[in-house]
Amino acid sequence: MSATKVLVLGGAASGKSEFAEDLVCRLGPERLYLASAEARDAEMRDKINIHAARRGAGWQVVEAPLDPSHTLTTDKPVLFDCATMWLSNHLSAGSDLETAQAALLSALADCPGPVVTVSNEVGNGIVPDNALARAFREAQGRLNIALARQADCVVQVVAGLPNVLKGTLP
Amino acid sequence: MSATKVLVLGGAASGKSEFAEDLVCRLGPERLYLASAEARDAEMRDKINIHAARRGAGWQVVEAPLDPSHTLTTDKPVLFDCATMWLSNHLSAGSDLETAQAALLSALADCPGPVVTVSNEVGNGIVPDNALARAFREAQGRLNIALARQADCVVQVVAGLPNVLKGTLP
Amino acid sequence: MSATKVLVLGGAASGKSEFAEDLVCRLGPERLYLASAEARDAEMRDKINIHAARRGAGWQVVEAPLDPSHTLTTDKPVLFDCATMWLSNHLSAGSDLETAQAALLSALADCPGPVVTVSNEVGNGIVPDNALARAFREAQGRLNIALARQADCVVQVVAGLPNVLKGTLP
Repeated sequence: MSATKVLVLGGAASGKSEFAEDLVCRLGPERLYLASAEARDAEMRDKINIHAARRGAGWQVVEAPLDPSHTLTTDKPVLFDCATMWLSNHLSAGSDLETAQAALLSALADCPGPVVTVSNEVGNGIVPDNALARAFREAQGRLNIALARQADCVVQVVAGLPNVLKGTLP
Repeated sequence: MSATKVLVLGGAASGKSEFAEDLVCRLGPERLYLASAEARDAEMRDKINIHAARRGAGWQVVEAPLDPSHTLTTDKPVLFDCATMWLSNHLSAGSDLETAQAALLSALADCPGPVVTVSNEVGNGIVPDNALARAFREAQGRLNIALARQADCVVQVVAGLPNVLKGTLP
Repeated sequence: MSATKVLVLGGAASGKSEFAEDLVCRLGPERLYLASAEARDAEMRDKINIHAARRGAGWQVVEAPLDPSHTLTTDKPVLFDCATMWLSNHLSAGSDLETAQAALLSALADCPGPVVTVSNEVGNGIVPDNALARAFREAQGRLNIALARQADCVVQVVAGLPNVLKGTLP
């Protein structure tokens, strides 16, 4: 039987990553940080360093920009941060999104340990001018719906505070 | 006495239309799909076709880009999808928004059957650069407030999950 | 002992200011409107006038675009509208944000009377193209988290309706 799967949604700088880290810390002393971000520029490198400094010790970091399935075989608590960068990496790589999403969902569902997945809400602004941004928010929306459907618990983070939308927090 | 009026809010690709369709399907076997979208380009045509395929049979489609009041006299369950396209059509047409909004609100309130109205949340991003987009999100915000005020039930859909803000779901 | 501090969050045109005004009106007959907006252009002047007309009598208006601490010594109910304009003013002025934010948080916490602070949610759209907008939404997100942490009650306003995230409304 697989363990609890949690989806943590939130806007940019909503406190979602910090909330998710605290959640995973409560699930066990040895934990995996499954990172989808790649340090392609200085802004992203700064962000990665800030996150790493905040998390502190007790985390094993695994970088998996495209395919996290090899890591999702552990029974240690996993923080998958985040589905939005994962999606962005696949769009940049020109992947077939349907196939990639099906593989991700299946790997998450089958992981023997608990997994907390972080994902962004990007659809609550004005319609973007450019078609790529519109396609991205459509794909992100569909991914969030699919992740939410199979999660045991879904929580939206607003200004650091949880708004539980499904199930109960572990 | 008029029947239950529900407002379904959500961002782009939040699952709001699918949620609203399910809601209307539970309200009766014969139902009306009151469409405000017009197929002006390929992207919109695709979107309309995807929605139609998902809804399946049992729906009578009525297209009313500007004035849905003639249809809002039925006692069959109605899905009005969506107030955002309706607003966009009126802005494009150069309508007087105050008059148009008052007529819409009155038609919705007086409709003898249940109506589920779908509308977008567009105000939670960065201030848009262009004045038209700023005016649109102001108008959409005011419209949502007015729709919410007279609705019996208001639900915000996040990743396909309901967050009930007013009343109870029928 | 300091009185209740409330944070009212919401998107543009979500009804957050009106909700906050009603809240402050219930807290006392003599109240302060602590305004951070400056009428730099016609659009902003219109907005300020609309807000003022809606509020009506019974408000003493104090303009404090950068430093509201001198006013936050009263025991009358205060509406601080809004933290987003305050942040924007500091970014324009080239202030050190960490210092300014610490001073604001401290003045709010120490105010002997009740204070209702309005702030915008700006992080739920697509990643903005320009670096300044990205920096702004990061700073706004961090400010909202800090305001929420020290508030007794946090409420998100959606289409004029409250979604209480922390504590209970006074």
